[in-house]
Amino acid sequence: MISRNDCIQMDQADDLANLKNEFSLPDNVIYLDGNSLGARPKAALTRAQEVVTQEWGMDLIRSWNKAGWFDLPSRLGDQLAPLIGAGRDEVVVTDSTSINLFKALAAALHMQAAQAQTASRRVIVTERSNFPTDVYIAQGLSRWLDRGYHLRLVDAPEDLHAAIDRDVAVVMLTHVNYRSGHLLDMKTLTAHAHAQGAMMIWDLAHSAGALPVALNDANADFAVGCTYKYLNGGPGSPAFIWVAPKHQTQFSHPLSGWWGHATPFTMDPRFTPDPGIRRALCGTQPIVSLAMVQAGLDVFAKTNIEALRRKSLALSDLFIELVEARCAAHPLALVTPRNHAQRGSHVSITHPQGYAVMQALIARSVIGDYREPEIMRFGLTPLYLGFTDVWDAVEVLRDILDRQDFNANQSRDAVT
Amino acid sequence: MISRNDCIQMDQADDLANLKNEFSLPDNVIYLDGNSLGARPKAALTRAQEVVTQEWGMDLIRSWNKAGWFDLPSRLGDQLAPLIGAGRDEVVVTDSTSINLFKALAAALHMQAAQAQTASRRVIVTERSNFPTDVYIAQGLSRWLDRGYHLRLVDAPEDLHAAIDRDVAVVMLTHVNYRSGHLLDMKTLTAHAHAQGAMMIWDLAHSAGALPVALNDANADFAVGCTYKYLNGGPGSPAFIWVAPKHQTQFSHPLSGWWGHATPFTMDPRFTPDPGIRRALCGTQPIVSLAMVQAGLDVFAKTNIEALRRKSLALSDLFIELVEARCAAHPLALVTPRNHAQRGSHVSITHPQGYAVMQALIARSVIGDYREPEIMRFGLTPLYLGFTDVWDAVEVLRDILDRQDFNANQSRDAVT
Repeated sequence: MISRNDCIQMDQADDLANLKNEFSLPDNVIYLDGNSLGARPKAALTRAQEVVTQEWGMDLIRSWNKAGWFDLPSRLGDQLAPLIGAGRDEVVVTDSTSINLFKALAAALHMQAAQAQTASRRVIVTERSNFPTDVYIAQGLSRWLDRGYHLRLVDAPEDLHAAIDRDVAVVMLTHVNYRSGHLLDMKTLTAHAHAQGAMMIWDLAHSAGALPVALNDANADFAVGCTYKYLNGGPGSPAFIWVAPKHQTQFSHPLSGWWGHATPFTMDPRFTPDPGIRRALCGTQPIVSLAMVQAGLDVFAKTNIEALRRKSLALSDLFIELVEARCAAHPLALVTPRNHAQRGSHVSITHPQGYAVMQALIARSVIGDYREPEIMRFGLTPLYLGFTDVWDAVEVLRDILDRQDFNANQSRDAVT
Repeated sequence: MISRNDCIQMDQADDLANLKNEFSLPDNVIYLDGNSLGARPKAALTRAQEVVTQEWGMDLIRSWNKAGWFDLPSRLGDQLAPLIGAGRDEVVVTDSTSINLFKALAAALHMQAAQAQTASRRVIVTERSNFPTDVYIAQGLSRWLDRGYHLRLVDAPEDLHAAIDRDVAVVMLTHVNYRSGHLLDMKTLTAHAHAQGAMMIWDLAHSAGALPVALNDANADFAVGCTYKYLNGGPGSPAFIWVAPKHQTQFSHPLSGWWGHATPFTMDPRFTPDPGIRRALCGTQPIVSLAMVQAGLDVFAKTNIEALRRKSLALSDLFIELVEARCAAHPLALVTPRNHAQRGSHVSITHPQGYAVMQALIARSVIGDYREPEIMRFGLTPLYLGFTDVWDAVEVLRDILDRQDFNANQSRDAVT
């Protein structure tokens, strides 16, 4: 059985261990929730102060040009692009994931409706267990378009292939499931969707920054994602949207605000979309939150996503192994696939008192989170976690379970 | 003729003069662009640092509850409400003005389509000179709904009354015109729209925080607005949306993301809207930019909007008087109405070389802005401007014009 000393040695041999120094984390906390809110890069504070004091306070309105505020969505999009297998001028950082998904889905449905072979298709495929906002956005858009679009909610990943048939207009999937940590095969599913004449939208909320993503290689059509999880952009930092190069000059969406205009400052009362990816923009962006995204992205320049993925899998392998060995007496069940090809960067485990156990862990500074029903989520974020952290976290879990040191009747917070 | 000494005495007698101490402004700058980007409240830096270091850095994911991040849109909405004549639980601060307008217009069209008397109406009325994003959003939504909605663009404020007839589903107006500074009569226009069976949406981008707004008193249906101009929330800080109490339990819009759900953390795959104003929310909000809005709103607690309005009008009266007296030899023309009842808080003046003259002013630290065609805009923001500032600004303008000290052939920046 692996020992704590073994873990210390693994940390000493870990080329990525020094990346933890890029982050400011509280002492004595083991943070296993980077899959929900990434830790703070030290540089984020400097960046926020600079924007607030100098760019806003001193340069005032001139910063739209001088500090490049207006170009930030594109500049950050270009910096993010390599992490998701995209190129320059293909990504913008803007708005929220929900809103970007609305744009992508509207654009995809519109393109399908314009083609004779697919114009009559009315089915949108997604997983029933997809993050709810994705499902809600598809419901909202379907209802409002009032042309009979409806969702086909698939219950298990293995049923997706059969569900994507020639009635399907758009397939809209999240690459890594927020609850189970199940990683879908982007390339195979995209190819299958295309073979059936459907368009393919990927939500990368739980994969961007966590594992290699290859949007262009997979020939995907649209993608959206989040910058405040594995990309460490800050609480609620703006999301991103990617549009395949082949669609860039054609796609359109109903959120046609002035930032998406070809020449926003001519103040033309007719909307003419930007010729490229900036047509995915809508209104004025929250500059302080947006600017801090850079601090998160800069950390990735010090390493590469393949090395991060290797460490992420090693951390989650270790976590699973230790939990199964040391907590074997307890009613835990692994939800996340063991197969590396199907695993994201967090591990989900059920316990009948999952909520109470998670609260006990948090009270002892091992911070994961809880998702209904019964699921404890543990994010294994290679940028700022080591093997000893994993060992220590499992030891706290074991102790809580062995001593039944949790309050099974605890009322649930609205947000966890 | 009023002298600089008179202005100094007016500043000494001004009860609001000390509010300037709440702001951090560069020395020797006269900032006449608070109508575009408000100045920085000193407290904004403290708030940003607190959110970044303590709430994000130290408390991490726990801040969604502990720091009340999830409730911020409502808390800030309640704090803003009195400034726009609204009550508690009627406003949320969220997303951008463009996106909030999309929600409001979609909701209004939907409500009209559900009523037998108005179901067949297909006209949306607005001003041709409305801020372009408002027009673009209406165009985008109309096109996507694909039910024959179209815009009736009105050329002059005095033509609005006649344009709002029984074909109109929704009237969508900006209270103060971004270019001319013309203030519309909210109460009369709303009453007329209702008399014709139309619903009324107000965009308060250039009025919230600048002058008293009375949404409930005017019986308006929806309103949206901006927090980064007169409310001093920071660059691109999230916008707001107000929904009349009578519509709160009925309105719906297609951007149905998880933050608008009645119980977002039950992760239910069916969307059930929040019973109140929070159904206007969509996705996760940019917390650092959002939290700083409070610093801007806190300043208003130290005064009242009626006093601010009196000073704003006194400043703009003085500005107009001085420009007309001291720059009489030059081809300037006042665009903004002289009538107080029709004037917002900025003054627009044309000059055939308006762009070049504005660049010369900015080079001499008198910061206004330029809007096509030929318009120089001067924001008279009573929170941090005094009468002497106005005198000095006009003196610089006079000097530039008298000496023709501007480069008439200057190329134009993309953003000004």
